[in-house]
Amino acid sequence: MALTDSDAAFVRTQRVAHLATVTAEGDPHVVPVCFAFDGERFYTAADQKPKGVPPQRLRRFRNLVRHPRVSLILDHYDEDWNRLRYLLVHGQAALVEEPGERNEAVRLLREKYDQYRDVDFETSGGPIVRIRPVRVHRWLASEEAENPGGP
Amino acid sequence: MALTDSDAAFVRTQRVAHLATVTAEGDPHVVPVCFAFDGERFYTAADQKPKGVPPQRLRRFRNLVRHPRVSLILDHYDEDWNRLRYLLVHGQAALVEEPGERNEAVRLLREKYDQYRDVDFETSGGPIVRIRPVRVHRWLASEEAENPGGP
Repeated sequence: MALTDSDAAFVRTQRVAHLATVTAEGDPHVVPVCFAFDGERFYTAADQKPKGVPPQRLRRFRNLVRHPRVSLILDHYDEDWNRLRYLLVHGQAALVEEPGERNEAVRLLREKYDQYRDVDFETSGGPIVRIRPVRVHRWLASEEAENPGGP
Repeated sequence: MALTDSDAAFVRTQRVAHLATVTAEGDPHVVPVCFAFDGERFYTAADQKPKGVPPQRLRRFRNLVRHPRVSLILDHYDEDWNRLRYLLVHGQAALVEEPGERNEAVRLLREKYDQYRDVDFETSGGPIVRIRPVRVHRWLASEEAENPGGP
């Protein structure tokens, strides 16, 4: 599925998202992730790399290989709660295997984040994940007639 | 379990967290939440209230009543990736039933968020959730010898 223009524009303003996966025990797991968006798919790369632990073994990667249905939330927090907004993307995740897609994902990540320009994805072989949106849920406080509970 | 002083101090700086739950289908769900922290437990109240939908029926509440093991992530994003930090709280969630605990949770939420002072929790009866940490995972980029992959 494609995002609406408004959703895509909002996505492009965001520097960090939160990726929720499910563990082998069936419990939720969630981490902040940097991401790139190509207009249709989200890409995210390895995060912290505890010494001696290959990124492939990070919890989130093991989780999504076993259970590819993930949730990615993009949101804006504001002390003016009338400006709260979020986009919840339910998606299908997979490790990117095809070299052409991987190169394009790396290019998008580096275009968005200068910090990635010094990361040697080419030789590190660290995993890159593709998330393909299946369903999205958007919420804007300003569109609620009343918002009595707050966030 | 109790958080370390450093973790608790970090928690107190945060205005928004992200709560991950598991749906009836076993998939992850995640939303931004405002929260209060009493030094031991986290409390969060109803969020948006789509017209005609009682907050009790919101997805996150149905999820956590059915599957009380949740994850709450608190994190700081910074363009200087050496300053990235997160605290992932694996916890046991429950709706607060006892009036004394509920009143105290409301007091803490209002103390932290002026925005809640106009919310009539007393008559709305909207749910308040308690999350008791069972296990935490902390990550600070500055404590990593190397951080090649970024977030």
